[in-house]
Amino acid sequence: MPELTKAEQKRIRELHAKKGRREQGAFLVEGGKSVAELLASDWPVLAVCATPEYLAATDSPDLRAASIRRGLRLVEVSASLLTSLGTFEHNDSAIAVAGLRAWPQRPPRAGELTLALDDIRDPGNLGTILRLADWYGVSQVVCSPATVEWQNPKAIAASMGSFLRVPVSAADLPDWLAAQRDAGAVIAGAVLDGESTHALAAPFTGGVLVIGSESHGLSPAVQAQLTRRLTIPRFGQAESLNAGIAAGILLDTWRRGRS
Amino acid sequence: MPELTKAEQKRIRELHAKKGRREQGAFLVEGGKSVAELLASDWPVLAVCATPEYLAATDSPDLRAASIRRGLRLVEVSASLLTSLGTFEHNDSAIAVAGLRAWPQRPPRAGELTLALDDIRDPGNLGTILRLADWYGVSQVVCSPATVEWQNPKAIAASMGSFLRVPVSAADLPDWLAAQRDAGAVIAGAVLDGESTHALAAPFTGGVLVIGSESHGLSPAVQAQLTRRLTIPRFGQAESLNAGIAAGILLDTWRRGRS
Repeated sequence: MPELTKAEQKRIRELHAKKGRREQGAFLVEGGKSVAELLASDWPVLAVCATPEYLAATDSPDLRAASIRRGLRLVEVSASLLTSLGTFEHNDSAIAVAGLRAWPQRPPRAGELTLALDDIRDPGNLGTILRLADWYGVSQVVCSPATVEWQNPKAIAASMGSFLRVPVSAADLPDWLAAQRDAGAVIAGAVLDGESTHALAAPFTGGVLVIGSESHGLSPAVQAQLTRRLTIPRFGQAESLNAGIAAGILLDTWRRGRS
Repeated sequence: MPELTKAEQKRIRELHAKKGRREQGAFLVEGGKSVAELLASDWPVLAVCATPEYLAATDSPDLRAASIRRGLRLVEVSASLLTSLGTFEHNDSAIAVAGLRAWPQRPPRAGELTLALDDIRDPGNLGTILRLADWYGVSQVVCSPATVEWQNPKAIAASMGSFLRVPVSAADLPDWLAAQRDAGAVIAGAVLDGESTHALAAPFTGGVLVIGSESHGLSPAVQAQLTRRLTIPRFGQAESLNAGIAAGILLDTWRRGRS
């Protein structure tokens, strides 16, 4: 039975941090369901570990067969070792090391939507937004340099496998938005004093939708590029909505506009 | 200057757990902004602690004046002691002990919306939903017995002060929903095979909206009470949406129906 050397364990734990992910060109995928989805995709995988109990359970995905198909060795580890390798408070199922893959970035096409993220610093919010982008069929996500990296373990966990399907790239947003705007794309974003998403003068059918962080909103340089200023109407007293919730409501609004 | 005895510190830390909150009839409110909102409300407050640095900062809310107005002693503590009293990873602003308050529960009225929560076990999701209920002007939230309690510190933090404004109560959901249905209320909820929220046969203008957990959806006994079966249309490949996101999109749909 293959085992994990101390050196291999150390290299896996180094992936908790950005530095280790950069150096190894790899990141962690944690939890049996996400690992199964990773193995079923064409994404590069470097290593897989799982507990014997999880592999034996009848309702678990067949990680062994999936690993063999991929030509990977599946290492059996105890739940306590598995937990110590990853970032979850407790993990008794599986973990995988995935290789970095660079997604292509391209100009928005007619009828499609690009989501642009302006300094989304919370990895849970980023993962939630990737999952929403996947649900609503967004073409790509373009992140400002200060947005948390999508390989962050909390972002991967919150994306529930959607990181496998949604192309994510980075760009200096004001410049990139200006170029798309010059090429004729609609640049939409939520502001405090925009048109109500419940009473749009014209449907919002595509282009770029920019999501800002909850605490800071859209930066002035990004706001200056907007051609559609939208506002989610408020009917009560909460001060704001979090970035993931706002993204969900705005993406739902986009799909209403197209149908 | 008032200080905090060891016994007082111990009682505050006991509020991290459900047992301590039950025994003391109190719960924690953490972070300067939430504490300021609490003090500005008419909610019962038992104790307030803040760091001298936070009290001295010019952009901090005036917790001292607010405490005096409330007849409360404001205890100055170091950031390290404050952090040890609460549940945040780091807290250098303020913390308060709030008293429990029982909210009234009442039948849904025409044009209003009651949100019913079917076993929402994640406190962050519950807090997010309370904040959404506040944003969209929901009349009350009725929770199943297995739903996490709203006094959980993570729920309070995620609600961003909305726990002060949205009445929350508990009920055995199938029975309570049956009674509201018998009285003529619409009972709406999201299911996999319902009518698309983008093409409703008739607008959804109020009554009760039931939100289920992400992993289990609505329980069969709750599903049996639905008079409007709704589905948020999906355009991509993500398997599901989290409970907070789904609540946001459904509440937005409700307000579109009313306007």
